[in-house]
Amino acid sequence: MKSLLPIFVVAFLVGTIAIPISRPPVSAAPKASVETLKQLEDEFMKAAAEKGSKGYLSYYADDAVEIPNGGPVIAGKVNIAPGMGFLDDPNNRLTWTPLGGDISGDLGYTYGTFEFRSKDKDGKPHVDYGKYASIWKLQKDGSWKVVLDMGNAAPAPKS
Amino acid sequence: MKSLLPIFVVAFLVGTIAIPISRPPVSAAPKASVETLKQLEDEFMKAAAEKGSKGYLSYYADDAVEIPNGGPVIAGKVNIAPGMGFLDDPNNRLTWTPLGGDISGDLGYTYGTFEFRSKDKDGKPHVDYGKYASIWKLQKDGSWKVVLDMGNAAPAPKS
Repeated sequence: MKSLLPIFVVAFLVGTIAIPISRPPVSAAPKASVETLKQLEDEFMKAAAEKGSKGYLSYYADDAVEIPNGGPVIAGKVNIAPGMGFLDDPNNRLTWTPLGGDISGDLGYTYGTFEFRSKDKDGKPHVDYGKYASIWKLQKDGSWKVVLDMGNAAPAPKS
Repeated sequence: MKSLLPIFVVAFLVGTIAIPISRPPVSAAPKASVETLKQLEDEFMKAAAEKGSKGYLSYYADDAVEIPNGGPVIAGKVNIAPGMGFLDDPNNRLTWTPLGGDISGDLGYTYGTFEFRSKDKDGKPHVDYGKYASIWKLQKDGSWKVVLDMGNAAPAPKS
């Protein structure tokens, strides 16, 4: 690989000289904002819808903590995973809407409402309404991952 | 006040020169850590026990968000306050134990378990077990305040 280094250097220099306007320097790269987290929440939700629990958990840090309503605190993605199997049932669909959040340093959070659509024992559609807060942390690889997720119950929206 | 400025400057210089070891420069002041937040949680709990809802809410930022189990999201300390009146009833006692947390930049969080001791309609002692997550934010005055608090139900501990 060492022998390729000069080529990369030349390519980098040519790149930065040739397109200085369309390619801003790294130091001017946009910092993560609450909008970054809301966009991530959107991708996160799509991953859960398309790939079930595996997609959902790909947004969790390995040392994430889950705080489910009615159950004990669950520490570690490997221990959270078994409880997320319900996302693999095509009758179930979890969607959520962030209402707000904040970000500073390597930490951020979002909170909002969720809807969990499933079928009851008679096969009739059923909706559970809830609220959530997710805490996000910047990982060593530059990605933001959920380090804490908590949910509780919400009243059904007034129709 | 302007005329006093040179005196302050001399006093500052004498102070920093005379006791360089016992008084570290501001830049070396200890940064807030998770331990800072856990210590704050302890003071927070004492304030609630001694001063009820007023003590409890003194640890909330004006723009705090409460996410209570079973109810809607409540935004703003002024809107959260009426729901905290139960802390003014001497029969009620809310205690909590942080299990973990993190801090970065101007944001931090703690999570853990809580116990809410009250009396039922027959006057018998009753305990509700729950879990919580609190998000803390550094305020302009240098204090850390709760900007989001969320609770849900926990199973009773195994005896």
